[in-house]
This record gives sequence, C-alpha cells and structure tokens, in this order.
Amino acid sequence: MNAVTDELAGHELRGAALCHQLHWLASGRVDAEWLTTLYLSAIERENPRLNAYIALDAAGARAAAAAASARRKSGGAIGRLDGVPVAIKDNFDVAGWATTAGLPGRREHRATTDAACIARLAASGAVILGKTNLDEGVLGARTHNAHYGATVNPWREGYGVGGSSGGSAAAVAAGLCAAALGSDSMGSIRIPASHCGVAALKPTHGEISVRGMVPAARRLDTVGLIARGVNDLTVLLQVLAGYDAEDPRSRKRRVAFAPPDWEPGRLKSGVIPNLAALGTSPEVVEVFENALVTLRQELGERRGVSFADYPFDRARRAGLLLMEAEMLSTFASDLADAAHPVSPGFRAMLEFARGKSAPDYVAADRMLDASVLKMRRVFAEVDVLVTPTTPGAAVPLDAPEPANQALFTSFPSLAGCPAVTIPMGRSADGLPLGMQFVGPPGSDLRLLELAEVCAAALDAAPVYPPRG
Amino acid sequence: MNAVTDELAGHELRGAALCHQLHWLASGRVDAEWLTTLYLSAIERENPRLNAYIALDAAGARAAAAAASARRKSGGAIGRLDGVPVAIKDNFDVAGWATTAGLPGRREHRATTDAACIARLAASGAVILGKTNLDEGVLGARTHNAHYGATVNPWREGYGVGGSSGGSAAAVAAGLCAAALGSDSMGSIRIPASHCGVAALKPTHGEISVRGMVPAARRLDTVGLIARGVNDLTVLLQVLAGYDAEDPRSRKRRVAFAPPDWEPGRLKSGVIPNLAALGTSPEVVEVFENALVTLRQELGERRGVSFADYPFDRARRAGLLLMEAEMLSTFASDLADAAHPVSPGFRAMLEFARGKSAPDYVAADRMLDASVLKMRRVFAEVDVLVTPTTPGAAVPLDAPEPANQALFTSFPSLAGCPAVTIPMGRSADGLPLGMQFVGPPGSDLRLLELAEVCAAALDAAPVYPPRG
Repeated sequence: MNAVTDELAGHELRGAALCHQLHWLASGRVDAEWLTTLYLSAIERENPRLNAYIALDAAGARAAAAAASARRKSGGAIGRLDGVPVAIKDNFDVAGWATTAGLPGRREHRATTDAACIARLAASGAVILGKTNLDEGVLGARTHNAHYGATVNPWREGYGVGGSSGGSAAAVAAGLCAAALGSDSMGSIRIPASHCGVAALKPTHGEISVRGMVPAARRLDTVGLIARGVNDLTVLLQVLAGYDAEDPRSRKRRVAFAPPDWEPGRLKSGVIPNLAALGTSPEVVEVFENALVTLRQELGERRGVSFADYPFDRARRAGLLLMEAEMLSTFASDLADAAHPVSPGFRAMLEFARGKSAPDYVAADRMLDASVLKMRRVFAEVDVLVTPTTPGAAVPLDAPEPANQALFTSFPSLAGCPAVTIPMGRSADGLPLGMQFVGPPGSDLRLLELAEVCAAALDAAPVYPPRG
Repeated sequence: MNAVTDELAGHELRGAALCHQLHWLASGRVDAEWLTTLYLSAIERENPRLNAYIALDAAGARAAAAAASARRKSGGAIGRLDGVPVAIKDNFDVAGWATTAGLPGRREHRATTDAACIARLAASGAVILGKTNLDEGVLGARTHNAHYGATVNPWREGYGVGGSSGGSAAAVAAGLCAAALGSDSMGSIRIPASHCGVAALKPTHGEISVRGMVPAARRLDTVGLIARGVNDLTVLLQVLAGYDAEDPRSRKRRVAFAPPDWEPGRLKSGVIPNLAALGTSPEVVEVFENALVTLRQELGERRGVSFADYPFDRARRAGLLLMEAEMLSTFASDLADAAHPVSPGFRAMLEFARGKSAPDYVAADRMLDASVLKMRRVFAEVDVLVTPTTPGAAVPLDAPEPANQALFTSFPSLAGCPAVTIPMGRSADGLPLGMQFVGPPGSDLRLLELAEVCAAALDAAPVYPPRG
C-alpha cells in the first residue's frame, strides 16, 4: 500500500469495533505492531487539536506492541487483549508513569505499581498508548483543565466533551485508541461518552477493583469502560471484573456472570414520564422519544416510572458533598503544595466541604440509602430503566458547565447500579446524544445484551467523526 | 403438682435451652400457655430486683400464649417458635408498644408497625413478654439508664450487666424469657451476654433486616440474638434472616445458608498473642488460656495472628463517632424535647459529634474500610479468630464504665463479620466470662457449629444463676 491508501485503510481500522480488531489480530489479518503504529501516527496528527492525551509513551507502546506481535505470530497470545492499543484516564496508577489526577504538582512522582485494573489489562496483553485528560482532581464534567488544557469534541471544533473522563471518550471517538478506561462516580464516564457518540459502561459498584485509582468517593467510585461498540464493553468487563481482597468495596460474587434473568419476550422497560419538567432540553426529549419509537420491539412493554418521590437535585448535591469531603483527605498534600497551586475554583469546591459538619455528611450519606430503596422499588416494577444519558448536548468550550449534566447519571451511581450508554442520535447541529440503560446491581451482562440489540436497531453504532 | 414442686419444675424449665423447650412444646409435654404463665410469675417475682424489663404486657402475652396453645393442641402450629416466650430490647418497634430507645420522651408514642424482625418472630408464633432495658439512646455499655434505672447482674447483687442490650441478656440469664432480641453495633449484644453467662450472636452485617430498629450507625447496626444455648441461636437466625428490600443494607445471599467450607479436621484458629498488653485483665487472660487448653482438639491448629497493625483504640473511637453523628439526626426531636430532657452525659456525647467536620467523619468511615482489609488478611490466614469477649468481667453498678469494654467486639462490627460469644468460665469472684468466635462475612452457621462444639467441651453451657 502507498501512504494514501495506507492512511485510508488505517482510518477505517481505527473506526472498527474492538471485537473486530480482536478477530483480525487473532487471524493475523492485522499485525499488532502495525496497529499501534497506526494509532500513534493518528495521535501525533490529531492530538494537538483534540488534547485527548496529556501523556504519551510512543517508544514503550511500540515495544509492547512488538512483543504482542511476536507472541501472536508464534501462536502464544498471553490474553484476550494481546496487542490491543488502549488509553488510560490519568487517575489510574500505571507503573513508571505519573498519576496527575488532573492536578499540577504530581508530574514528577511516578507510580511504582499498576492499579488492579491496569495489571489485569497488562496481563491480558493490552498496549497502553498514553494517559488521557480529565477534570482537575477528577472533580467536574468539562475536561477543561486549568493545568492541562481543554479536550475538544471530535465532532465539532470549539465544543467540549463533558467529563471528567473527557480525554478517554474523545480518544475513542476520534479513533485514537481501540478502547479506554475512565472512572465514574456520578456520570464521569457516561456524560463524555454521550457527548462523543461512543458506548460506555459504569459497572455494578464493587465489580471491578478500584485499587490504584485515585479515590473520589468510595461509595460511588467505579472503573468505567469506553469503546466503540457495546460488545467491546462486554469483552473489557470480562477481562477486568473480579474480586480483589485489597479493595474494601470489592465483592465476591457467588455466581460470577449470571445469565439474563428476565425473559426478553416479556421485558418491561421503565421510562421517566416528565423529562422536560426535570430540565431535559427539548431536542434531547425529541431525539429520545424518536429512539423509543424505533425501539418499540426491543424495549418490550413500556411503563412510566414515577420519580416524583426522588429529589434528583438533592441527591446530586449529596453525592458531590461525599466526593468533596473525601477529596479533602485524598488531595491534602496537593492543596498544601504552594509550588504547584491548584485552581481557585477547585480549592473553593473542596473548602466548601471543610465547612460542613459530620451530621451534614451523615445526611448526604443517608441520601444514598434512600437511592438504594428507590432503586429497589423501580426494579420491582420494571426490568430496566431507560433515560437520556444527559439532559443536553455538549456545550461550547467557553460556555459554563451546565449544572444539571449529571441529572440522569447520578441516580445509578448513588444506588450502586450498572448503567450503559449508547449513541441514540444527534442534536440539530450534529452533536451526538446518548441513551442510558440502568439495571439492578449485578445485571451488567443483561444490560449490555439489551444495549447491543438497541444500538443495532437504532443503527447508531458509533459513527466516525469527520477527520480533522 | 403442688405449688412448691411446680415452682421447682418451673425453675428447671426456665433454665432449659430454647431447643429443648421447642421439643417439649411440640411433643405436648409442656403447654404454651403454662410456659408463658411460668415466665410471667418469675418476672413478677424477680424483675423488681433485676430491672431487666422496663415494659410488660402480661394480658397480651397470656392471650398470645393461649392462642399458641390452642394451635399446638390442634396440630396447627403456625411456625417454628409457636408459643415460645421472648423478650425484645426496647429499640425495636412492636405494634402497640412504645419504643423508648432508653430515652425519656417516647413513652406516649406507640408504634403502629412491627419491625421486620418482630414481624418474622410473630409470624413464627413467638410470644412477646415485654421490652427490656438498655442504655440511653442505645449509646453505652452499662444499661445504667438515667430514666429507666440500672439492670442488675443476676449473678451478683450490686454488679452491672454491660450493655447496651443489658436487659435482654439479664432476662435470658435469669430465666425470665426463653430468648431475647437485642442490637449490636460495637458489641452491645456480646458484652452483656458475656457478663451474664449466656450465648449470643451478632450476625453478618445485612443478614437480618434492621428495618424498624432505631438506628445507631447504619454501617455497623445488626440485630443480635441472645439465648441459653448456641443451637438456640441457630434456630433464631433461621427464623429471622432474609432479604428485605426496604432495608438498604439488607443483602440478597445467593446461597442462603452455605454449609461449612472449612474442613473441621484441618481447622486453623487464630488467637491474638499479646492480650495483656492490649489491656485485658489478668484473670480474663488466665481463664481464656485455660479454655484454649481445654479446647485444643476443637480449635485445631492454633496460630498467632498479629494485630500490631490494627489501631484498636482509634477504630473504636471511629465507630463511636459514626454512631454519635448519626444519632444527632436520629434523635433530633428527643434532643429538642424540653419537657423530657435527655441526660447531660448523653447530650454531651452527641454534641461532641456536632463539633466534628465532614472530613472528620470521612476519616472515621475510612477506618471501617481499613478494618475490612485487616479482616480479609486475618481470614486469609485462619478460619476463625478466637478472643475473650470482653477484656474484663462485669463491674459494680457504681463503678464507671470501663473505657475498653468493646476492645474485642468492635473489630468484628467495623469489619461486618459475624461473631458468637459463649460462656468460657468465671472470674475469681464468680462472675461469668465469655469467649468470642469471629468468622468472615457469611460464615454465621459454621461459627455457630464450632461454638456449640466448644461450649459442650468447656461444659460451660449456660449455668443457672442462684435464685434471688
């Protein structure tokens, strides 16, 4: 191939689902080393514009890919993901790399141990291309970082990606990696995935170890997965899930991966009746309603599920307080580092929590118990809850962060539920919009099965953004 | 029988294990109505001295017992406990009764619904004799209540029973009920059971619903069981355990009651090496060491388990802060009730928490995560941990509460583990001392099996205290 056709073929390959790449790698149609080189070239070309990655190690990635290539050729792949190039949000420890967590003073300190999920990725053969941009201190939903710059939406110049896992979502959307890890405590994976037109999973709380991930709020924190296709998320979950005795929130599942325990032919899907009244933008309501019409077969019996008894706004603020209060401890030395001052806005958010009392914290924590009870009532009525992922599309980089971005993503977090987002259509000016599927704890696999069927029906499997 | 032999037979019957009573009730050798009358007479005679009960309903109990008797005679017993007379700590809602929680202003308000565990007891046919004394606001370990008086140790006049479930433990020890419910957040069941020479179980966190129990600290609260024999606890657990969708901390067990998953022939028992250095009294160390010698067969391979890395005192104070901070909310209206002032000491403990910040609460809550990790390391080494239940025997009623009473009971609470206490011997002046068995979450049944075997070997199955 000459350079032009090579780039065209590469462009297509970078737009393919991880599952397809796995097949091509295994069959020898694609070489692991070549695949990584392809992504590195694309990163070199497009990352200056997008700022999805804030740290790269091209030499290390090439070496890892060469080793994977040699293993593949000798028939000795070490794991499911051998040779697959991935991106890691910069709040996971990767041995030899700094873990900035979006903060200014952490660039010199290198992690000596892999986070638990990184160790699983590495044992499976994945090639780490680099670390991705995020909000300062993992707190926010803009990925407009005071120290590392803003990540730009691959779908539209001058627009943001949401956050806090914005770099990971943009990297997947722009074809700058095959899949990416992020974290999700209130929607940090699902919001940017929705804004970037890709698929993402926030698993059941405790399903993937969070050891070695910078903690936000222990009762909310999950490792999140982003990829181009829903089936890709299933593969990643199978690689990453499992009990970790060193993570106090990790759970031993008695049945590792249960089969779906609803009858697809009798599926009951819950929808929230008054989306507009809750603050959902008219165009999101319209695209969502159209998608529901398209999915009338797939979603089975549709039932309105009242959330009139659920104080969305108070719940979201409760979750935020838990995060801010814990972060005061997690980031104590960053706050005290005069040589690398954090931004005034970040400091103010954390200081807000310092002024709160132990009983205030209890009141917030009790909101989580209330969310668990609400969730159980919901899933006594329906098998799955379907919502827009975000109440609005991505906003311009210079616009303020919408206050209600986590409107639909925070409830599953507070209740410990798994949630999947898939692209469901576009806004009037072409920005992607996501649909969220929420199930009871432990229903991750059945949610993914349903989301895959729906993504196919919507024909909204991730579309490749225009090349920069 | 004349009155004297009747009383003697009754005295023996009241000293029998619940399991034996169940057999006699089922076989018709003992009549349910007569059994309740027997207990009510004993209560009338002995409760003025012991103050184990603070509320009674003799007429209601007689009516319930008469109904049970009729059902037994017609062969239609409604459940396992049909006709068994029980006592309830006064922090559980029982429809028609006040729930004082040991506080002064709650006598006029009657509960309209049974707590979840009370409903299960009632459905099983148990007869509620009355409600038992406890510490003010369920906070403390003395059962020396400013509003309801002190409960006296049945084993020795002028001595206390520990707490906070002191009334329930004393009632079982003195033969004033067949079994009793209490609650246990840091040792509130195990401490008084140890001081009163009876058996008790604090189950795995989430195993028995706490709905309708006055909350202390949600992450620590459990319903606890007290009885004369270990097998009695197993029967009670089987009646009371089960998922409750309305209790946010209730868990769905995938395998309801797993068989023991250790090999009894290869049992590894952990002991903490430096009991005296931790603050255990010399006589408790001596009785415990003697018991271990007696149990050398039963406990299998004995291994020292270091707790040098576990800050017992900080852990206990962390648990206390969680309780006090939550109680500020739970008891807000009691604290504000000028007509029925709480004691200055109780108010001071809760106000202490009001002065603590949200980050202070986070630090305390993280101590629970640290306890979970420590517990996992312990149970990677041994199958069961064996300790004294308390570091000292019961103290005189006019002595201050020992600061370290919960030394050995708080760790299992903070780590969410089940724990059983059985009598292991007596102090020099004849006061009972308990031995605690701790296992990993979910091991309740295998712990009970082991504790039963050990209780038999120690021949320390509950001994009947001298009659008052």
